[in-house]
Amino acid sequence: MSGRSLLVLGGARSGKSRYAQARVEQMGNAPAFIATAQAYDAEMANRIARHRADRDSRWTTFETPLDLPEAIADAARKADAVLVDCLTLWLSNLLLAEKDVDAAGAALERAILACPRPVALVANEVGFGIVPDNALARRFRDEAGWLNQRLARISDEVVLVAAGLPMILKPPPSP
Amino acid sequence: MSGRSLLVLGGARSGKSRYAQARVEQMGNAPAFIATAQAYDAEMANRIARHRADRDSRWTTFETPLDLPEAIADAARKADAVLVDCLTLWLSNLLLAEKDVDAAGAALERAILACPRPVALVANEVGFGIVPDNALARRFRDEAGWLNQRLARISDEVVLVAAGLPMILKPPPSP
Amino acid sequence: MSGRSLLVLGGARSGKSRYAQARVEQMGNAPAFIATAQAYDAEMANRIARHRADRDSRWTTFETPLDLPEAIADAARKADAVLVDCLTLWLSNLLLAEKDVDAAGAALERAILACPRPVALVANEVGFGIVPDNALARRFRDEAGWLNQRLARISDEVVLVAAGLPMILKPPPSP
Repeated sequence: MSGRSLLVLGGARSGKSRYAQARVEQMGNAPAFIATAQAYDAEMANRIARHRADRDSRWTTFETPLDLPEAIADAARKADAVLVDCLTLWLSNLLLAEKDVDAAGAALERAILACPRPVALVANEVGFGIVPDNALARRFRDEAGWLNQRLARISDEVVLVAAGLPMILKPPPSP
Repeated sequence: MSGRSLLVLGGARSGKSRYAQARVEQMGNAPAFIATAQAYDAEMANRIARHRADRDSRWTTFETPLDLPEAIADAARKADAVLVDCLTLWLSNLLLAEKDVDAAGAALERAILACPRPVALVANEVGFGIVPDNALARRFRDEAGWLNQRLARISDEVVLVAAGLPMILKPPPSP
Repeated sequence: MSGRSLLVLGGARSGKSRYAQARVEQMGNAPAFIATAQAYDAEMANRIARHRADRDSRWTTFETPLDLPEAIADAARKADAVLVDCLTLWLSNLLLAEKDVDAAGAALERAILACPRPVALVANEVGFGIVPDNALARRFRDEAGWLNQRLARISDEVVLVAAGLPMILKPPPSP
């Protein structure tokens, strides 16, 4: 099985997670779900529970707020396809933990390129609104945009999801 | 005449209303315009007046802040094509009136599927910015995204408009 | 050489500037870069410096916070292709200086249509988030959307960039 990679971008409530899941279920029979979300509050706990309820018993779930490159390597040994949901929360976790975002992005790139299984990555597109008031939100928006560009460059296929429907940003390589 | 449905998504000042109007003028000679906007203030009154000035005498205007499914059925008896502008303001009205948004969405779906005339729906895409600070804005953004997904699923054709130009999310069925 | 025009829309950190630059380097060997940014603070000065470092010695840089139509005419006499980066900062400068935005947009249109060299324009798409809290931000968002629509109408080619990858809004005319 090839190590093809798919990047799924989308807005909030765009259906990007569901789309990515359906794609990964076509890539493998025993896929891994790597969740980067942390349930700080009831709102987030609800979202995590709703996403988990959407997945059937074929899926194995891994939770990884920070060590994503390692989690991808680990999941690829235990599953036949890997879904990461989502990069933007991972970035948020990195910033909160004051990690080196650029080094983490480079390590993620290496993990994806080295992964022997198909990998799909979900990320938020957050740059289409007006400039945020506070500097932290601006930094987050910048870093999220740069991370998306970086991953788009190495991904074999990139789509942007709106209202549950994909627009092709980079078509899959012909077979 | 078929009851085909078209969903037109777009950002603020994207030209989505004008695009939808031009499409509906090709669908019927005596179209209905269902306005969901309420003029609370001068800013909104200006926008409503500007949109109305864009429409010529072929159009009949209906104003419906809340009872959209009923208005669609009514308009379909009096006109040969129906334009709803816009779903996102309707959602906002529902939330302000503390209505059951999920039940309203289901009723809207039924009204569209039952409509004997072509229907076009305009909606805002609001999920491509950073996470809003306040919980009400986050809830609105979630509900708007879910409503768009729901309508996109049952629509025959879906486009996303930017700078007045459409990107195809779901192509129209071939004739 | 034709005076073809290209409009490059995109979100924050979408790679729109880099994409536009690569396109303009194919249009001319001695291109002009018209910068509309003003460095009010360290954050903005950093961005300007980063963008400048991305350009090689073939480029000539012009700085024009307000008089963009004149700068385009001037640059077209001294270079063989023109890149304006970006329209949204120019709009912001116009609003801050309390200029007539509509008249400025009309003058810009005339300058582009009259330009004997290929022109590429970079602009932000800012309308895909929730409605901003303050009236100034709403006005800015409205004007930015209208300006983008206006330029899209007269441009020969329009693309929307996300994660460094272009989606075609208006395909280039066939040769």
